[in-house]
Amino acid sequence: MSFDAVELIRAKRDGAALGDDAIDWLLTQYPGGAVADEQMAALLMAIVFRGLDPRELRTWTDAMIASGERLDLRGLDRPTVDKHSTGGVGDKISLILAPLVAACGAAVPQLSGRGLGHTGGTLDKLEAIPGWRATLSPDEIRRQLDEVGAVVCAAGGTLAPVDRALYALRDVTGTVESIPLIASSIMSKKIAEGTQALVLDVKVGRGAFLGDQERARELAATMVRLGADHGVRTLAQLTAMDRPLGRAVGNALEVVESVEVLRGGGPADVRALTLALAALMLEAVGIVADPAAALDDGSAYATWRAMIAAQGGDPDAPLPVAVRRTTILAARPGVVAALDARAIGVAAWRAGAGRARKEDSVSAGAGVRILVARGEEVAAGQPLLEILADDDDHLAHARAAAADAVALGDEPAAQLPLLLDRVDQATH
Amino acid sequence: MSFDAVELIRAKRDGAALGDDAIDWLLTQYPGGAVADEQMAALLMAIVFRGLDPRELRTWTDAMIASGERLDLRGLDRPTVDKHSTGGVGDKISLILAPLVAACGAAVPQLSGRGLGHTGGTLDKLEAIPGWRATLSPDEIRRQLDEVGAVVCAAGGTLAPVDRALYALRDVTGTVESIPLIASSIMSKKIAEGTQALVLDVKVGRGAFLGDQERARELAATMVRLGADHGVRTLAQLTAMDRPLGRAVGNALEVVESVEVLRGGGPADVRALTLALAALMLEAVGIVADPAAALDDGSAYATWRAMIAAQGGDPDAPLPVAVRRTTILAARPGVVAALDARAIGVAAWRAGAGRARKEDSVSAGAGVRILVARGEEVAAGQPLLEILADDDDHLAHARAAAADAVALGDEPAAQLPLLLDRVDQATH
Repeated sequence: MSFDAVELIRAKRDGAALGDDAIDWLLTQYPGGAVADEQMAALLMAIVFRGLDPRELRTWTDAMIASGERLDLRGLDRPTVDKHSTGGVGDKISLILAPLVAACGAAVPQLSGRGLGHTGGTLDKLEAIPGWRATLSPDEIRRQLDEVGAVVCAAGGTLAPVDRALYALRDVTGTVESIPLIASSIMSKKIAEGTQALVLDVKVGRGAFLGDQERARELAATMVRLGADHGVRTLAQLTAMDRPLGRAVGNALEVVESVEVLRGGGPADVRALTLALAALMLEAVGIVADPAAALDDGSAYATWRAMIAAQGGDPDAPLPVAVRRTTILAARPGVVAALDARAIGVAAWRAGAGRARKEDSVSAGAGVRILVARGEEVAAGQPLLEILADDDDHLAHARAAAADAVALGDEPAAQLPLLLDRVDQATH
Repeated sequence: MSFDAVELIRAKRDGAALGDDAIDWLLTQYPGGAVADEQMAALLMAIVFRGLDPRELRTWTDAMIASGERLDLRGLDRPTVDKHSTGGVGDKISLILAPLVAACGAAVPQLSGRGLGHTGGTLDKLEAIPGWRATLSPDEIRRQLDEVGAVVCAAGGTLAPVDRALYALRDVTGTVESIPLIASSIMSKKIAEGTQALVLDVKVGRGAFLGDQERARELAATMVRLGADHGVRTLAQLTAMDRPLGRAVGNALEVVESVEVLRGGGPADVRALTLALAALMLEAVGIVADPAAALDDGSAYATWRAMIAAQGGDPDAPLPVAVRRTTILAARPGVVAALDARAIGVAAWRAGAGRARKEDSVSAGAGVRILVARGEEVAAGQPLLEILADDDDHLAHARAAAADAVALGDEPAAQLPLLLDRVDQATH
């Protein structure tokens, strides 16, 4: 069937729903250029304003999945469950969860992307480990799931490839911020990855992609519905991202903190969120196990070592550390009222830990160490943040971004509870 | 000054007003590709939803004018006044007005475009005259205004060239229908053309670009304000386009009907609208004259002959007539309730009189003759419309489009008065 792209753009612009055949046509014609970039850009902007209804969104997501391969993970001896986060500052939870949930008896196939902007990417973090490689073949993924139970690797170009093209276009056309477009982008890859169950960590607050809890809840509900429509048992948890997670932001820095948690220690908020999400993942596949025990008894850490080694990494190798450093000092005595997740995320990005464009490289050793906790009393001149970068230019940019990241006052400011609402099929 | 296109798109998407420097930057960077087609398309769609405020619109229009040349028509011995119509079916008024108003003592520099879609273009109509050429140099335009008083020619590529690029982009991205974008496109060319005064015929009704009178009034007020901001005395008249104008739709067919009016005859509605718009044009430049007398005493027709001859046309040459013909017959006896302007416009377009894309050619001899008037009693089997085309394929498509164009009933349906509101500076 053939359509006129301009008529479809006008229809969406004017608030109509697009037919299934029309959506299929758009997403099959776009990669070859029969629907031009400028036409898709205009359509995406119309979708930002008009949305996609549930039927359109399902068809749109189906068409993205159909544009590529679908992994077949059936026949493993344990159930598969993955986790996706919408992205936060200091959010290293995926690194810990994959081996932890595997140690509890599930298989975790985590096909990830790289970071863009002020939130880091899981692959960028693991690539700080000498020798570790992100790219695996489907056979290698299956074998590692069989043997280790956990794999974190690049989603590659074969899963939902039209999403990759659309995401690149959205990135340069101001059309990223649309709930159906975000939901279809995330879920098309997760469904194509072949997991049986999925837990979504949808971040809320200034450091997150969606500041507003209502919008975050809508995104969560949209993704849960899409997962269910495609036979993937999907649960979502809204979690706080008004402050950073843990005390380390940056690639190698976050690997170090993840290992601390995997060995039974680490910051309390990172451990708490890890355990909450692990419980959801295990619930989603019906496994009864105690993830706290797996952190404390060394089994999660053993799985981590096996997972890193299986992808060529040396779990005992020293990690890169950036050589240029500076500290942000308290301008006056006071109480740490708040840590601004966005400002700290931007500072780590400017220090070199993140990228502005897909093709940029990242520094393994750059980032921000958070030296104080909310509610702590500090003296004038006390170090609040330590910034690490590979050169003075990055250091200066990061310093400027971090200058007001720690708010001092007379008492701690209000903050969101770490765990907000849970969104699953029963609630929608 | 330099900007980030994505930030500007996001700002407009989220409802912010763009700064003057940002607008200048966008419209100077776009032609060279530093702002990509897909970025401009997304921005245009955001403007469709968010609009441009009066200050943004003025800056946007200024930037379009500054992208090209500006004709200097000062120093003529009479005042200059032009007319623009937003486009209607059977709207040949420009052909008649230019020589008529020149015969009344003004100079009419009418720089026009070609038709697209179901409404015809003035240049397409005049090109039905053997030998007539649309392209004149600025010197030729001035000389013809001096010697004849009227010129209708192609706007060419030197006036507001960025508008040409933007219009082509809007055409393929579903972003034509935006009041500020329409207003800036029309007014940038008219202001660059150098006319002192301008009368806008803003069409309302099913056959017009804007069906809704409120939107038409808003477009008119927006253009009147833009003209005033740029020192062009601008008046607008809303006129009915729920039915076609006159009884001929098509290029050569409309030239024939125009000559009838120029010789004191022709359909009453075409003559009435011509006289109303001529009166506004003369008012705008302060000339007291009787345009009806100029139609009746032969002076307007003499100016027409001089105007056509000055551009190489032979005013006495026979005009092309399409050789394939068919008629639409009344299926039953009744009264002609209504003539559907859009259906008749589409039929003429399908017959070959109009183009779907800029690069298409048009047929000079194709079109539709309207054989009955609203309110007329017809017998079953009586011819209602005659369709002319160059081949059977076009004829069949036109016939299908025209099938229901004439509504029969027991009495005439309601229709808009030919002249609706006048919009000028005093009212806004």
